[in-house]
Amino acid sequence: MNRFLTLLVLSATCITGLRAADSFVSFSRQPGVALAPVGSVHVDEEEYPGVKRAVANLISDMQAACGRQLQVTVGSIDRSTTVQRLMRNKVIDRKSLQGKTEKYIIRVADDQIIIAGSDKRGTIYGIYELSRQLGVSPWAWWADMPVTRHDSVFLTPGQYTDGEPVVRYRGIFLNDEAPCLSGWVREKFPDSACPSADPKLARGFNHHFYERVFELLQRLRANYMWPAMWSNAFYADDPENSRLADEMGIIMGTSHHEPMARNHQEWARHRRENGAWDYVTNQEVIDQFFREGVRRSKDNEDIITIGMRGDGDTAMGGKEGHDEDFVPNDEFYIKLYEKIFRNQRQIIKEETGRAANKRVQLWALYKEVQRYYDLGLTVPEDVIIMLCDDNWGNIRRVPAVLDANGQTVRKPHAGGYGMYYHVDYVGAPRNTKWANVTPATHMWEQMQLCCQYGIDKLWILNVGDLKPMEYPIQLFLDMAWNPAEFDDPQSVQAHTEAFCNGIFGYDADMLAQGYGREAARLLTAYTTYNGRVTPEMLTARTYNLATGEWAQVVRDYRLLEADALRLYQSLPQDALTATGSAASFAQLLLYPIQSMANLYEMYYAQARGCQAEVDRCFARDAELTRFYHSINGGKWNHLMDQIHIGYHSWNEPRQNIRPQALDRPSAPSAPAVYGGDAGYVSIEAEHYAQATATQGKWLTIPNYGRTLSGVAHWPYTAQLDGAALTYRFDLPAGTDSVRVHVVTNSTLPFLRKEGHRYAVSIDGGAEVVVNYNGDLTEENQWHTFDVVATRIIERIVPMAVTGQQRTHTLTVRPIDPGMVLEKLVIDYGGYQAQHLFGTERSIK
Amino acid sequence: MNRFLTLLVLSATCITGLRAADSFVSFSRQPGVALAPVGSVHVDEEEYPGVKRAVANLISDMQAACGRQLQVTVGSIDRSTTVQRLMRNKVIDRKSLQGKTEKYIIRVADDQIIIAGSDKRGTIYGIYELSRQLGVSPWAWWADMPVTRHDSVFLTPGQYTDGEPVVRYRGIFLNDEAPCLSGWVREKFPDSACPSADPKLARGFNHHFYERVFELLQRLRANYMWPAMWSNAFYADDPENSRLADEMGIIMGTSHHEPMARNHQEWARHRRENGAWDYVTNQEVIDQFFREGVRRSKDNEDIITIGMRGDGDTAMGGKEGHDEDFVPNDEFYIKLYEKIFRNQRQIIKEETGRAANKRVQLWALYKEVQRYYDLGLTVPEDVIIMLCDDNWGNIRRVPAVLDANGQTVRKPHAGGYGMYYHVDYVGAPRNTKWANVTPATHMWEQMQLCCQYGIDKLWILNVGDLKPMEYPIQLFLDMAWNPAEFDDPQSVQAHTEAFCNGIFGYDADMLAQGYGREAARLLTAYTTYNGRVTPEMLTARTYNLATGEWAQVVRDYRLLEADALRLYQSLPQDALTATGSAASFAQLLLYPIQSMANLYEMYYAQARGCQAEVDRCFARDAELTRFYHSINGGKWNHLMDQIHIGYHSWNEPRQNIRPQALDRPSAPSAPAVYGGDAGYVSIEAEHYAQATATQGKWLTIPNYGRTLSGVAHWPYTAQLDGAALTYRFDLPAGTDSVRVHVVTNSTLPFLRKEGHRYAVSIDGGAEVVVNYNGDLTEENQWHTFDVVATRIIERIVPMAVTGQQRTHTLTVRPIDPGMVLEKLVIDYGGYQAQHLFGTERSIK
Repeated sequence: MNRFLTLLVLSATCITGLRAADSFVSFSRQPGVALAPVGSVHVDEEEYPGVKRAVANLISDMQAACGRQLQVTVGSIDRSTTVQRLMRNKVIDRKSLQGKTEKYIIRVADDQIIIAGSDKRGTIYGIYELSRQLGVSPWAWWADMPVTRHDSVFLTPGQYTDGEPVVRYRGIFLNDEAPCLSGWVREKFPDSACPSADPKLARGFNHHFYERVFELLQRLRANYMWPAMWSNAFYADDPENSRLADEMGIIMGTSHHEPMARNHQEWARHRRENGAWDYVTNQEVIDQFFREGVRRSKDNEDIITIGMRGDGDTAMGGKEGHDEDFVPNDEFYIKLYEKIFRNQRQIIKEETGRAANKRVQLWALYKEVQRYYDLGLTVPEDVIIMLCDDNWGNIRRVPAVLDANGQTVRKPHAGGYGMYYHVDYVGAPRNTKWANVTPATHMWEQMQLCCQYGIDKLWILNVGDLKPMEYPIQLFLDMAWNPAEFDDPQSVQAHTEAFCNGIFGYDADMLAQGYGREAARLLTAYTTYNGRVTPEMLTARTYNLATGEWAQVVRDYRLLEADALRLYQSLPQDALTATGSAASFAQLLLYPIQSMANLYEMYYAQARGCQAEVDRCFARDAELTRFYHSINGGKWNHLMDQIHIGYHSWNEPRQNIRPQALDRPSAPSAPAVYGGDAGYVSIEAEHYAQATATQGKWLTIPNYGRTLSGVAHWPYTAQLDGAALTYRFDLPAGTDSVRVHVVTNSTLPFLRKEGHRYAVSIDGGAEVVVNYNGDLTEENQWHTFDVVATRIIERIVPMAVTGQQRTHTLTVRPIDPGMVLEKLVIDYGGYQAQHLFGTERSIK
Repeated sequence: MNRFLTLLVLSATCITGLRAADSFVSFSRQPGVALAPVGSVHVDEEEYPGVKRAVANLISDMQAACGRQLQVTVGSIDRSTTVQRLMRNKVIDRKSLQGKTEKYIIRVADDQIIIAGSDKRGTIYGIYELSRQLGVSPWAWWADMPVTRHDSVFLTPGQYTDGEPVVRYRGIFLNDEAPCLSGWVREKFPDSACPSADPKLARGFNHHFYERVFELLQRLRANYMWPAMWSNAFYADDPENSRLADEMGIIMGTSHHEPMARNHQEWARHRRENGAWDYVTNQEVIDQFFREGVRRSKDNEDIITIGMRGDGDTAMGGKEGHDEDFVPNDEFYIKLYEKIFRNQRQIIKEETGRAANKRVQLWALYKEVQRYYDLGLTVPEDVIIMLCDDNWGNIRRVPAVLDANGQTVRKPHAGGYGMYYHVDYVGAPRNTKWANVTPATHMWEQMQLCCQYGIDKLWILNVGDLKPMEYPIQLFLDMAWNPAEFDDPQSVQAHTEAFCNGIFGYDADMLAQGYGREAARLLTAYTTYNGRVTPEMLTARTYNLATGEWAQVVRDYRLLEADALRLYQSLPQDALTATGSAASFAQLLLYPIQSMANLYEMYYAQARGCQAEVDRCFARDAELTRFYHSINGGKWNHLMDQIHIGYHSWNEPRQNIRPQALDRPSAPSAPAVYGGDAGYVSIEAEHYAQATATQGKWLTIPNYGRTLSGVAHWPYTAQLDGAALTYRFDLPAGTDSVRVHVVTNSTLPFLRKEGHRYAVSIDGGAEVVVNYNGDLTEENQWHTFDVVATRIIERIVPMAVTGQQRTHTLTVRPIDPGMVLEKLVIDYGGYQAQHLFGTERSIK
């Protein structure tokens, strides 16, 4: 991504040529760069308070990144007399900023850095761009991405900008915020420490918390947000919430079913006084409720959501939590909607004192509302029409139709189209709240679909508890700024790596060693795996046990865990502090991977009927949660409180429920028969059908030989008369000869110098006597070395097969002591030499 | 293992009954136990210095384990007047000790612990038994096994013993000691700090080093040792070596080719003056050399190795390093041997002043020497005949022959039989020095074979550099003490776990959580894997690449690494100190597993022709070595210096040699054809044989869908005329119908409300048009939920196959935009539903 373009050269002596640059900050001297000037940050007294707040953060970011302040001048063109003077003096080009939206210019020359913004947000984005280039990730606080301290900072002279955003409104929706975010917020941002929060109402979602969220949004160049609303009323609970949003340049909205800048809780808490949330029967009270909302927000930039849904995020006329009972009554509701729109617009006009089309409004086509849109219901041209995904990340409708010839006809709309997209959802078939289950390429592909059909006025992402959706948030907002930078899927890969580089504080040494690349691979892999099925939907029956599919996916997830642990283990010592890379890696990758690998193991154990292993995994799940909650001294306590085991309907159970192992088919009473599908049958020695012994016994020695075990007639000094092992196996019809590979321990002729022997027979027929170690002598030493050092003796015995039955027997009878049988291969034409002698397949 | 037997009750008031007990020390009060008495350790002035030395260690062990001294009285019956008085007073039973070998009694009663030994070693073993039960592992120093501090120590009154050892002489041979042990010894035990070491000769193998080794042997109840002899002369380099051994009760020996208590280096360093090491031509000088050895050792217990081999561990008449050139000349050499024996015995008699049969002697049947034994050469009845393995852990000969009827006839020999066994070897086919490659059950089985045939007078284990052979040493010596305790292979499993418990300081909480059991599983698994092939013999061709065997073994080793890392990660905080469990676990399990997993990955990459991955693994091997060398502040620096990559003959190369990736068969120019062996063909979407597009293009989106990628016609707004994807696959002859599973992204009908479509055709035949998402509507919501939440749409299309050719084509033609094809399954009768839609197999 080529985010920086040198705009113009102002002084040939200090700005060396016109060129594109990824970054004007570097930490090593290169041709054309100058040591960054040390000094202080200048900002005019009359500057926006929100800009001054960002400057304060810039100062502490500089302190963290280089231990001192650089010489920086900051200003918004409509506030800063300094920037106005610089424009008059042609140091800053007026045309590049005047009338622009959220644009900054960073000028690096003449021993200072000038950050000039077209407006409040433009200036703030410029400030955080400098922070970012100094190595302060937007996620420094929210994901403990460390800041690497640099002794020297060098600057490339030039003028830089990132232009204007493509998607005008870009933001997130904190949603489904209990138990995780709510528990965390209450612990970390207690209302008792926030005087402005209403003690009767607030539940921790006060402006101390939102300050952290707003700063994250600023650093990610977002400008829009829907606040948490399950039990919270952003505007009402802490009046500072809304004031701070405005100061920090965050445009607030309300969710699709919270019209007129009011929160659902504001109604729900007073249902008794308010009466029904029914525009047909209770219009007067509802209009007054609407009016108060607009009045409260008339002096800020907040976008007014218009339209209406039923009480509590259900269809009008429906019942909360029972969407499936929805009965269409299209003509009635379309007329009602038109009336609602009319009245809402009238209220907006009256309360703001300006024409309704002067205030940005949004109409959300969520769920059943899209039905009315399809049927022709529309809104005034200035209202943003927000299309929605299906809650699962699939775009439901684009603003186009097919004509009679099957040609696409666009539906232009001056207010533009928006998209409400989900990476978290509470609903059917099952909630997805606990883990990041969104493959980046899937979001990329669907948001490209939006762009291709002109859905680009507003993008909002439902991010649940915010964590663990760090990466989807970053990708969504970066795409929103300029989708054209993401012109092919490779750009997603590069973007993932850039994000992951932050885990390592953008440390050049660590990145050169591939830490960021490997972390990106882990992130891509785990989200690809989670894209297969969400943790909430995963069950013992998701994968096929019989075909080995279950074994494969468990193995794959565990191998991914091995990689994650390898990286974790390989972190340098100074990354292991509470705020070092280890903490960031643990929350962004290690925990997500380990916890899911463990769930896979648990359900696989359930599928195989292994209750003890289910129990172990179930306990480990809780341990891993504790691990996450302990990261960085407990900074993220509660954020993994989400229930994620034991779903039996769309909504989560009250607590994680230990799975009960499925019934395993009881072991067959008859000894197994072995077969093969690659031209051979492989049998482990301990899987004999019959073992006979007169003296002594047949002893299975576990962990012996190359795969499973060895079987020996024990003790070796016992008489061997009558001792034999017999195996059962299937051959294809018509097989008349086989080559039997008998694999035994590298036993030497310790008693009978001429060599020890066993006899092999098929179907009780003629025995072939094999001297298996007579050649392992000192005299024959090179051969002997090769055999003994690989610890097995493999003898290949060609044998005839006369019986026409499908199932045959093979008998091995030791003649001399010391034979430890390990494996048998009956090759009927397809065996390729293998060090482990193939894989055994039981067929009965 | 039931090591403790209550012998007798002396006082009914303080010794509660006669019973077997695993342990008389516990850390929690139970019925019948008493708080351990605090006090001091009493040892008589006239006690053996070696016992006093052990008492000093006991005191510091008690300090570590419980922060104070217990009330202990220690004495050997032939030295301690206190113990003699206790015997007179019948507190200690004289008959239980008098005339016994290496036996102790520990009496716990009357507010004190009495440790009485039948002799010096018996007392010392008793002392260290108390240490062990207090939680001080024999490996506390040598493998950083931590000591858990206990506030309270309780004792079960009674009398305890472990009886006498079964194998009279039990020990280890430090061998092949460069570069690892030598480098470490020089760094950690510099001769400059050891005044008694001869500055002209010594190379670090001075008595400061041996003190550590002897103490380990004492704690493991061994009594015998062959010292390092590659460049070192134990007796000559530091006179304190031999004196200290005697003091500490370690009986020294010399290796099979170092007769008469002299080290090979003592001869080799003076070859010029000495002349040839040839008894035929240079007998006088050699006899004098022999005589000096016996004279030097006449006052200690050292076992005199008799017989002779050629110069430098080769056959007589052979050349060092060229064993393969050995030419038998049996009659001559047998006569020569008889003469040598005669003369050696005469020298022993003259130098010791007693009959030759009064001094313990040993004759080693190493390599070609066994030949003469087989031919009838024998030694006087009092000499121990030491049989040998084949250097690879396989017993070569038992002292028995078969008579004419095939019946086993034992060969009784009054001096008894010994066994020289290897877990380290320098020789063909390739050295095995770097890793522990010995499966415990294999050693167990072979040592049981020894016992069954009466090879139980002396056991010595070649342990190379000592580390990393910690566990084989423990098992070998424990079996030697009492093989009957190891009566079945399960006992090995229990023993491995007991050893691994020490990694966790025998901490009851950690062991209850299964740490020891899991560590034992890791140890068993990794040695089983290493038993398949040694690291030095492992090559890119060891496993079969084509059958997937290589992939499997790499996966298995990496999964084992995941388990090791999981355990490592789960260690409690206080285990992470330099001397905590983490250090012990890292050296005993984590490094061995990680380093081998990495070697497997490296050779697998070589086999696949991936040089970059070979390079990465090769570099990681060095990193892992550095990791081992950094454990516990560098305590084990150099011990993994062993070269282990790049062997091209039996001996190691000068340095690890980076493997060169094998040639990969170049990719076929024709598009691949896919097939299957389970009744279906699975094809990844990006593996099309042909992709046609008029407008737009076909875009592969990596990491999309459930397995590999998705393929989309891009952009979605481009015209679809002429767009199609075609695949090639094989069907069995005679197939006339298939069911084609088309797997696409969960695309919704975002443009054409009635549903988006594609057309499928086989071999260019009639198209079947499929509406793949028309049913994914809000009205059909439960079905829709299930589809979208699992992110794919699977449509099953029954189709006829008319062509008789083996290879067919399948074409998918999108009709509406938005199709992202992910996978195809062509089911011709065997497909079972799988979440990932089966595994793709390219057949051409």
